[in-house]
Amino acid sequence: MHIKKQRLLTPGPTPLLPAALHAMMGSDIHHRTEDFRNLYKQVLADLKTVLATAHDVLVLVASGTGGLEAAVQNFFSPGDEVIVCSAGKFGERWVDLAKAFGLKATVLSAPYGDAVSPAAVEEVLARNKNIRGVFVQASETSTGSQHDVKSMGLAVKKTGAIFVVDAITGLGTMPLEIDAWGLDIVIGGSQKAFMIPPGLAFLSISPKAWALSESATSPRYYFDLRKERKSAAGGESSWTPNTSLLLAFAEALKYIQSIGMDKLVENAQLLAHATRQAVRALGLELFSTSPGSSVTAVRPPAGMDSGVIVKQYRSRFNAIITNGQGSMKGQIFRLAHLGYFDFHDLFAVIAELEIILAAEGYPVRFGSGVAAVQNVYAEAALPKEAPLLV
Amino acid sequence: MHIKKQRLLTPGPTPLLPAALHAMMGSDIHHRTEDFRNLYKQVLADLKTVLATAHDVLVLVASGTGGLEAAVQNFFSPGDEVIVCSAGKFGERWVDLAKAFGLKATVLSAPYGDAVSPAAVEEVLARNKNIRGVFVQASETSTGSQHDVKSMGLAVKKTGAIFVVDAITGLGTMPLEIDAWGLDIVIGGSQKAFMIPPGLAFLSISPKAWALSESATSPRYYFDLRKERKSAAGGESSWTPNTSLLLAFAEALKYIQSIGMDKLVENAQLLAHATRQAVRALGLELFSTSPGSSVTAVRPPAGMDSGVIVKQYRSRFNAIITNGQGSMKGQIFRLAHLGYFDFHDLFAVIAELEIILAAEGYPVRFGSGVAAVQNVYAEAALPKEAPLLV
Repeated sequence: MHIKKQRLLTPGPTPLLPAALHAMMGSDIHHRTEDFRNLYKQVLADLKTVLATAHDVLVLVASGTGGLEAAVQNFFSPGDEVIVCSAGKFGERWVDLAKAFGLKATVLSAPYGDAVSPAAVEEVLARNKNIRGVFVQASETSTGSQHDVKSMGLAVKKTGAIFVVDAITGLGTMPLEIDAWGLDIVIGGSQKAFMIPPGLAFLSISPKAWALSESATSPRYYFDLRKERKSAAGGESSWTPNTSLLLAFAEALKYIQSIGMDKLVENAQLLAHATRQAVRALGLELFSTSPGSSVTAVRPPAGMDSGVIVKQYRSRFNAIITNGQGSMKGQIFRLAHLGYFDFHDLFAVIAELEIILAAEGYPVRFGSGVAAVQNVYAEAALPKEAPLLV
Repeated sequence: MHIKKQRLLTPGPTPLLPAALHAMMGSDIHHRTEDFRNLYKQVLADLKTVLATAHDVLVLVASGTGGLEAAVQNFFSPGDEVIVCSAGKFGERWVDLAKAFGLKATVLSAPYGDAVSPAAVEEVLARNKNIRGVFVQASETSTGSQHDVKSMGLAVKKTGAIFVVDAITGLGTMPLEIDAWGLDIVIGGSQKAFMIPPGLAFLSISPKAWALSESATSPRYYFDLRKERKSAAGGESSWTPNTSLLLAFAEALKYIQSIGMDKLVENAQLLAHATRQAVRALGLELFSTSPGSSVTAVRPPAGMDSGVIVKQYRSRFNAIITNGQGSMKGQIFRLAHLGYFDFHDLFAVIAELEIILAAEGYPVRFGSGVAAVQNVYAEAALPKEAPLLV
């Protein structure tokens, strides 16, 4: 074990698509040229196709949180009443953002590992007709949970409020019918299921949301989406664009279209399902009661700090996985599935987990977790008569 | 399984070292400049360090076979009597080269999968005092066998002959004490344990070999090693050098020195050992009676064509492994260990092999081969008290 290749296996940044990485070498272009405008128009068109929405789609030079901020700034005014669904560290970020911009938030909190129920959202909407927006994470990356954004969206759709969905790790890991489900604003980031490095945020914006933007008075300049929409129509960005990442994004979007966005989602779902089966086979517990497919949060064996597992992945195998965030640090470790992950990755990740557990004194039967992953693969892709020994 | 990352897992070209690949982006240099001369001198010095030899070391713009040809052209004359040890497709290449340059070869053949014994070489040397050279493969890539070059070298050392070792897949996978064992000419290639793409061959040349070169009359021009030695002394190459690969080679040599050449060998040996254990655990048979650590040749289950396994690695997992060559095609598949391979690779490769065997109707207990690999890891790197369940 003298050679240990570094492997980035976190829920963002995620493993990089080689073709996208190679495309970044073409960055010696200028952004106020026809070449760039063609690239930018193509990226926006392909992104719209991949998101399968008729809504406007805009790209920002920002990480995901910039996209969240843009959603608050452009559609709301100080004093606006909103609902914030919070079930983890990223839910808390919505709370912080609402506070920073003076919104009056009704916070629907779920304990870490749980999800906010659509019924709770409906109940507040029914009670308070002044609600102008509902904020949620489609996938709460910090806990591995997902929200039922379909039910929530259909409920919000019936009101005057807009539904603002942080889908940064939701996109590419769960079905999201943006237009049909009333997902007025959907925010994504480049370094998640889109397989390229961090640095780009993007949003889809419904006509209902644009209408609200007319009366929104929150201060904004860099993230002025109406200005950005105008620029984008001409194939440009308002400010200097991130050309290297746009070149990469163009390649990644081509790749995603070549396999199909629905298949990208299925891929994450299958890997997440296999991971849950392996976790159970090893006698460990899932953290989330409503697990999504972007990342699986796992409780370490009783008495073991999850940080030990994270550190051993790095020291023994040079594999980078994530610990819990905030108060969940030490309580969970997280195995990612979003974007450019495949079964080959997972076979090794689970074999390594078995070794790490054994090294820490937890009784393990080598190969038992891997076999659970293999069984999921077999069920999905092997002839039914394959003669498996038990 | 919609995402299948392409993985190159063959015994050459081998997986690429990322730092080396990135260095190739610096290829906009000219080869008759001080910058290049510094680079070239560094590569030659580092290569000499890595090979741990006091002999001259030269680099050629050629693939490995060019290095073999250079060894024939520069030290022999038509009609020279030589011994060729042949135990596979690469042994046969020595036979072809000897014929092409009019050498009179005594061919010591071993069946595919076996190795030529040092005793057989000694016997011919004792019988024929006119032998001017002995040719062998340290590692016969086509069968996964290795030769006892130490014993052979010590025997040749006592005679006037030189020992010419094709170590293209031997370097970095087995100990090779070039000076002490009398390995007069050792040939390597860039795309093997050296972790960079194909395009460079290199040789170490002993004083005994240089002395023979004085009287060698085989025609040569491009591969004139005496000319090359003169050029190299000034930090240049006789002809236009492959700058991109030299930039990559510089990085790879740095990396190999950072882990240690002996550790690189140990790494391959441990992975090869683990692979053999997995093969046995799965009830399969090794092809070689004298298996080396560059590549493990495995017989498929009775009645199964190994090409099916190779094809399924590609179709199911986008992993590229190799079939047998020549008449061994269909009879063996080969799993590589040389260079930039680690346990993470092997866990997945064996999990995939189990799935492929099951898909083809061979009874498999999922995880059993992986467990054999894990046990080898555990024995080498886990605390002895790790509580493994059986």
